[in-house]
Amino acid sequence: MGKQAIGVVGLAVMGRNLALNIESRGHAVSVYNRSREKTDELIAEYPDKKLVPAFTLEDFVESLEKPRRILLMVKAGEPTDATIASLKPLLDKGDILIDGGNTHFTDTIRRNQELAKAGLHFIGTGVSGGEEGALKGPSIMPGGQRDAYDLVAPILTEIAAKAPDGEPCVAYMGPDGAGHFVKMVHNGIEYGDMQLIAESYAVLKQVVGLSNEELAKVYTEWNEGELDSYLIEITSKIFKKKDEETGKDLVDVILDRAAQKGTGKWTSQNALDLGAPLPLITEAVFARVLSSLKTQRVAASKVLEGPAAKPLGAERDAFIESVRRALYFSKVISYAQGFAQLRAASEEYKWDLDYGTIAKIFRAGCIIRARFLQKITDAYTKDKAIANLLLDPYFRDIAKNYQSALREVVIAAINAGVPVPAFASAVAYFDAYRSERLPANLVQAQRDFFGAHTFERIDKPGSFHANWS
Amino acid sequence: MGKQAIGVVGLAVMGRNLALNIESRGHAVSVYNRSREKTDELIAEYPDKKLVPAFTLEDFVESLEKPRRILLMVKAGEPTDATIASLKPLLDKGDILIDGGNTHFTDTIRRNQELAKAGLHFIGTGVSGGEEGALKGPSIMPGGQRDAYDLVAPILTEIAAKAPDGEPCVAYMGPDGAGHFVKMVHNGIEYGDMQLIAESYAVLKQVVGLSNEELAKVYTEWNEGELDSYLIEITSKIFKKKDEETGKDLVDVILDRAAQKGTGKWTSQNALDLGAPLPLITEAVFARVLSSLKTQRVAASKVLEGPAAKPLGAERDAFIESVRRALYFSKVISYAQGFAQLRAASEEYKWDLDYGTIAKIFRAGCIIRARFLQKITDAYTKDKAIANLLLDPYFRDIAKNYQSALREVVIAAINAGVPVPAFASAVAYFDAYRSERLPANLVQAQRDFFGAHTFERIDKPGSFHANWS
Repeated sequence: MGKQAIGVVGLAVMGRNLALNIESRGHAVSVYNRSREKTDELIAEYPDKKLVPAFTLEDFVESLEKPRRILLMVKAGEPTDATIASLKPLLDKGDILIDGGNTHFTDTIRRNQELAKAGLHFIGTGVSGGEEGALKGPSIMPGGQRDAYDLVAPILTEIAAKAPDGEPCVAYMGPDGAGHFVKMVHNGIEYGDMQLIAESYAVLKQVVGLSNEELAKVYTEWNEGELDSYLIEITSKIFKKKDEETGKDLVDVILDRAAQKGTGKWTSQNALDLGAPLPLITEAVFARVLSSLKTQRVAASKVLEGPAAKPLGAERDAFIESVRRALYFSKVISYAQGFAQLRAASEEYKWDLDYGTIAKIFRAGCIIRARFLQKITDAYTKDKAIANLLLDPYFRDIAKNYQSALREVVIAAINAGVPVPAFASAVAYFDAYRSERLPANLVQAQRDFFGAHTFERIDKPGSFHANWS
Repeated sequence: MGKQAIGVVGLAVMGRNLALNIESRGHAVSVYNRSREKTDELIAEYPDKKLVPAFTLEDFVESLEKPRRILLMVKAGEPTDATIASLKPLLDKGDILIDGGNTHFTDTIRRNQELAKAGLHFIGTGVSGGEEGALKGPSIMPGGQRDAYDLVAPILTEIAAKAPDGEPCVAYMGPDGAGHFVKMVHNGIEYGDMQLIAESYAVLKQVVGLSNEELAKVYTEWNEGELDSYLIEITSKIFKKKDEETGKDLVDVILDRAAQKGTGKWTSQNALDLGAPLPLITEAVFARVLSSLKTQRVAASKVLEGPAAKPLGAERDAFIESVRRALYFSKVISYAQGFAQLRAASEEYKWDLDYGTIAKIFRAGCIIRARFLQKITDAYTKDKAIANLLLDPYFRDIAKNYQSALREVVIAAINAGVPVPAFASAVAYFDAYRSERLPANLVQAQRDFFGAHTFERIDKPGSFHANWS
């Protein structure tokens, strides 16, 4: 029996679907799972596919061509460390482990360094697109040793999603944790996108008074323009879906308590560490947390009154267009923050990230796929060193033309008592970023007053302390 | 020569001032510093004080009564671990180490556990009030073994600040890291307070057009009412201060780039870990970060235009009162978030924090000292189990009466292009917290659509998955 070019460890839904994806491109794939049931199930379900089961790690490793390519699709954290520890003694120098799990990039950096000491390569890769993406073509964000990447690139390229222009959605991100870092920021951006859409929904429903049927139409129309994206597309479909049990619109039956798996949180925590302003995504993370406090909210709604919402009249259609513009411009601001975080990380961790390429591989396969990503690639193609996307001519024009709509929508929401934390944060960030002078001079004065923390002056370099009392 | 009841290790400004504070209450104090210059300087400066220098850790430890009480005032992190490691072999069971540094509470939990194994007590204590507070009376937030606290309580009580009613601003916070945790949240709240004041300044200056002289008057007046607090008091003084070099108002000479030492960041990162919504303080942290990007802001200000600010007319005085109300209500919202974080932490780490007492010991000595803290103590005295301060009758009244002012000020700022991230975040939090229904049902629908993450229903318990396609 010949040996396989690649094997997959971990046959939960993501691992299994990636194995099937690889197999569908003409490769035999070794498969292994810690408990053999999952392996048996997979083989029983697909008896005719070139999936080669192994029931011990020894047999699994033995079944692979050298240098071995092993895709780990096990739970992030402990289980990944345990799997690596079991595999390590069985491997030879030059073998390549690929962690496709939802791993924090600092773990990837650590594992990459530890395995490198034993002559093993370690690639940490983001895989986005959910179950379906894994099966049919995800967006893939690998980081690690460049020469190891080159040895797995052909297979990753085959299984990756293809953008509208045919380009595969995979590219080398950078050394050690770069791939998992990019995936983390991708997820943070996804939190921001989803919260912004949710706020547009709240405004359209509570301020404009749209029905679910009308909402479906609005999002369908929006999906044909600048906002064309997977998340807007599924939003339009969600408003059409009926609950099979009650016959009601399903969206109204779903409890308004948003869960999370923690990657949005990681993005915000890292932004705080890097000193990269990421308020919009962070508001989105906190909005999910606040939504989960349903019992408290219900109690508070009975005692904390707000303003009465006034339905709109003749200006309805114009206001809906304002919401669209507010959503698009806020999205631009969110990506500007996310990509500025990538830049800060690239400098901090010495990754030399290619921002235009990152936007490119987001164009298909992943959850945030959108037509607008091309504009980001274009911006970095024009000027790789641009400090913030808002400074690019295309995005400057959006800012110029859409900011009044964003202000209008936030003001309408505040007047109606509808919470729009992400929209409001977008306005604040935009106005702060374009402020030559912020009131931070007062903050520095206070810090020097109570803690002798010193201040800088506008008229000469150095740090100074005043005798305040 | 007799032995001393307490000794201080680390004679930088905070350690030195705390030693002098203890000495001023009639105690002889052993003092030690790693490099002897600082010790020599201190003794030379205060030859008549009962400060007993030691130049080796052995002599220092030998100079103390048992159980020994050793206050560590060394740099947080590595240096603290190194000092503990050097001291440990010299100590006896029952001795008490007190870390008064700016330590992350997770380090305190770890050290407390490690030292407990050797029979040593470890108290991690927040000390707030800056240099002056350390010397004359800080707010002190100790956590660790209760019986060890009782042995140091008399001295801590003597040196602590005294509230207007004479009560000392020190109390046992809870086990292991509780003291440093409370100090961390104190600092986060301080970031929020300072940013809110900075935003009120920006609005008063840029929307109302007040001069520094007028600003000094406004803050002086505000300090006589509900906003009576140390930070408002120093703000009023800051606007009166002249630059000795140029004769200009000093506040205008100070560069608008706010620095930070990282504790605000810790507070936000922990809130994200706990799942406790803390958007206002987090916006404040990001606002400092954004202010530090001065070069980018100056560049952006030249290409990103905003709306033209329109100066106010006859409604000027009424608007200034709206700003005052906006500031007070936002401050209430910020503390509601901070105290909700304390509650989440108390449950997560099993500390049994006493929120009313915490507000009480903030009333003097520390940077956030304010008349309004009494209202928080009152709220928890009435109902220790209250889930959120906004539900307390006093704060509900503030919400009812001041929310329109807050909305008005945020709207005016948005219309004028003046960034008010913390004010705007306060409105969004208030409106979200009092929302029986948030648009998070859409977020859950999206998550179930693309990732089969399931959702809950409003009409029955359980988790459900729809066949969306």
